[in-house]
Amino acid sequence: MGSDTAATGGARAEESLLLTPGPTPVPDEVREALARPMLNHRGPEFASVYRRVLEGLREPLGVGAEGAVVVFPGSGTGGFEAAVVNLFSPGERVLVLVMGFFGERFAACAKDLGLQVETIEVAWGEAVSPEAVAERLLADVERPESERIRGVLVTHNETSTGAALDLAGVAAAMARVKGHGALLVADSVSGAGGMPVRMADWGVDAVLTASQKAFMVPPGLSILALGPRAKAAASRSRMPRHYWDVRPYLEGWERAITPYTPAVSLFFALEAALARLAREGWENVFARHLRLAAGVRAAGRALGLPPLASDEVASPTVTALRLPEGLDGARLRAELAEREGVVVADGLGPLAGRVIRVSHMGAVGEAELERGIRALARTLVRLGLPADEAAAVRAARAAWAR
Amino acid sequence: MGSDTAATGGARAEESLLLTPGPTPVPDEVREALARPMLNHRGPEFASVYRRVLEGLREPLGVGAEGAVVVFPGSGTGGFEAAVVNLFSPGERVLVLVMGFFGERFAACAKDLGLQVETIEVAWGEAVSPEAVAERLLADVERPESERIRGVLVTHNETSTGAALDLAGVAAAMARVKGHGALLVADSVSGAGGMPVRMADWGVDAVLTASQKAFMVPPGLSILALGPRAKAAASRSRMPRHYWDVRPYLEGWERAITPYTPAVSLFFALEAALARLAREGWENVFARHLRLAAGVRAAGRALGLPPLASDEVASPTVTALRLPEGLDGARLRAELAEREGVVVADGLGPLAGRVIRVSHMGAVGEAELERGIRALARTLVRLGLPADEAAAVRAARAAWAR
Repeated sequence: MGSDTAATGGARAEESLLLTPGPTPVPDEVREALARPMLNHRGPEFASVYRRVLEGLREPLGVGAEGAVVVFPGSGTGGFEAAVVNLFSPGERVLVLVMGFFGERFAACAKDLGLQVETIEVAWGEAVSPEAVAERLLADVERPESERIRGVLVTHNETSTGAALDLAGVAAAMARVKGHGALLVADSVSGAGGMPVRMADWGVDAVLTASQKAFMVPPGLSILALGPRAKAAASRSRMPRHYWDVRPYLEGWERAITPYTPAVSLFFALEAALARLAREGWENVFARHLRLAAGVRAAGRALGLPPLASDEVASPTVTALRLPEGLDGARLRAELAEREGVVVADGLGPLAGRVIRVSHMGAVGEAELERGIRALARTLVRLGLPADEAAAVRAARAAWAR
Repeated sequence: MGSDTAATGGARAEESLLLTPGPTPVPDEVREALARPMLNHRGPEFASVYRRVLEGLREPLGVGAEGAVVVFPGSGTGGFEAAVVNLFSPGERVLVLVMGFFGERFAACAKDLGLQVETIEVAWGEAVSPEAVAERLLADVERPESERIRGVLVTHNETSTGAALDLAGVAAAMARVKGHGALLVADSVSGAGGMPVRMADWGVDAVLTASQKAFMVPPGLSILALGPRAKAAASRSRMPRHYWDVRPYLEGWERAITPYTPAVSLFFALEAALARLAREGWENVFARHLRLAAGVRAAGRALGLPPLASDEVASPTVTALRLPEGLDGARLRAELAEREGVVVADGLGPLAGRVIRVSHMGAVGEAELERGIRALARTLVRLGLPADEAAAVRAARAAWAR
């Protein structure tokens, strides 16, 4: 162990450090907002909060002048369902880009709700290329109009692998396929707020996200942003829908009328979180996430836990680190949590036990990540692996200093 | 004005008093729980919270040994949708008992999601009689099997009118119609936790409720309790569903695995609220609500604002008070809020401006309601009506003393 270990001694006595990719730590000022006294959701005070939150979400999502934001009581998965039931009609065909667990879930959601689902799949840890999407749509133009792909459903940032999609590139590739009008719908649950989403500029029709990731708010808010083509689709869709129907939200938002009771406390929290992020400046927020990601990746390499995703597709918000053969991932995570108070996430699906996932989104900074890296190094040593804590910290700090 | 007005003088300086029928005031200990630091929803600490909440909901809902409780991130309306998509199949017929705004919403939800909807409607403020339900089902037996009513969807406590349904009576009446297997599904969003729900004893198949009413928690949790027949129906239903699908919840609850991220902070809050209510004792909680309701009704009568619902069908949790012809309800509520800090709700639908709705559920007691009654009396006097504050308070106290 390095000589500077003493500085973080007594980790067990410290507060637990949450480095899971959602829920992420909630800053004190956001927790205080959360605990504000309840108020009438139909009164003027909540109306102001509601409008400020919808307004505050426009910049990080790049909604543009013609777009709209809807916030439901729900989880991220609710955003999948809201996108599917509002934008498509029963039996329509969609193409889902599957890069991991959450791509599979998006496909399952669309299928469960009655769409015909085609996929482009890549190995977990890789990203689908814009060219692959363009090729598929070019071939699709050969089909009769009624059979064609109506939507491309993508995972902007695959939380299960730490690989990010070139969303701008996919949008541009789709635009190059003349005469193909498929909607581009992005799950950016673990992306939005931590990496740029420029719906209007890029030509993304709908983006769904949630409160508990880069927005630093507890789980319970499902966010769906719609561009003009998505709004038009929502008025045409013949999918049975009630709870997730965006139409009453779009009609009522100026009067701050929600069709049913909003999750008031989580709105207080999101208002506080958006204010904090806007004060930092969204470009600074995005740059911070990139910088932190580079440090975690460098530290992982120094510890013999290389990132699953290559640098070209590295997520700014979450990194999956590969574990060496024979290392018991469950034991590693348990030791980390119990002896160091540091909580990281297991891999999902086929990656369970084979990677750990370290979040660097939201309210974590260099100090927290350094604590996490040191704790990870010490735990590896305890488990008999030759991890060099000092080297890992040096590698991270070098990346952060850039 | 009565001589004891001085005791509540300076109302504007006090904290605002929320007497709306949801969201209701959140007690300090529940707000503190809400603001606890975030944790990993897949770790052992959340698993304990999750199990305690599901366990704690069983008694107020009378779930019985064979029943199950599911908690979704969502609002009360989400519970409507969850009941519809899990218990029925496309095109099936249901009978909805409509006693007000929320009965209409339940009917709209069922229709939007593809069911055939029949209704029994009564004037707003009245309750459907168990006999009317039995009659309809008796006639229904004449239909061919495939055309029959599969479910009876009811509002246990109509928040828009302050009228409660005799749910036990409806269940008993349905049981008397031999050979009719319709499921009984109750919206008890503003009932459960404030009035008895004994699913297993009465023979109610499913009950949906929410966090923000008698359970004293902020909005954002949608609760669905299922008896054995409802669980069986959920495994047969052919309705397209994903987010609201109860099956992964029922499979995962013992391991505390939710199919997607739960609203962690609201679980902390519900755990604290359920502990507080269990300490009081559920029978005491129900008796308290009945007693408070009687006082509010008596005070309303003393002020010339008689309850909309008769004593026979009076809700234990919310009272709609009729306003005299010519009194501007919006002005009354605005004066109450601005000059007295007391927030009551407007009527809904055709009752907008014609009633005010006063909640007496959850974390409000005699002191809060007396403040509300005094404020209401003073406001009526200010608006030129002959209201006797002292008499109203005497009437309420007499009811509370019984």
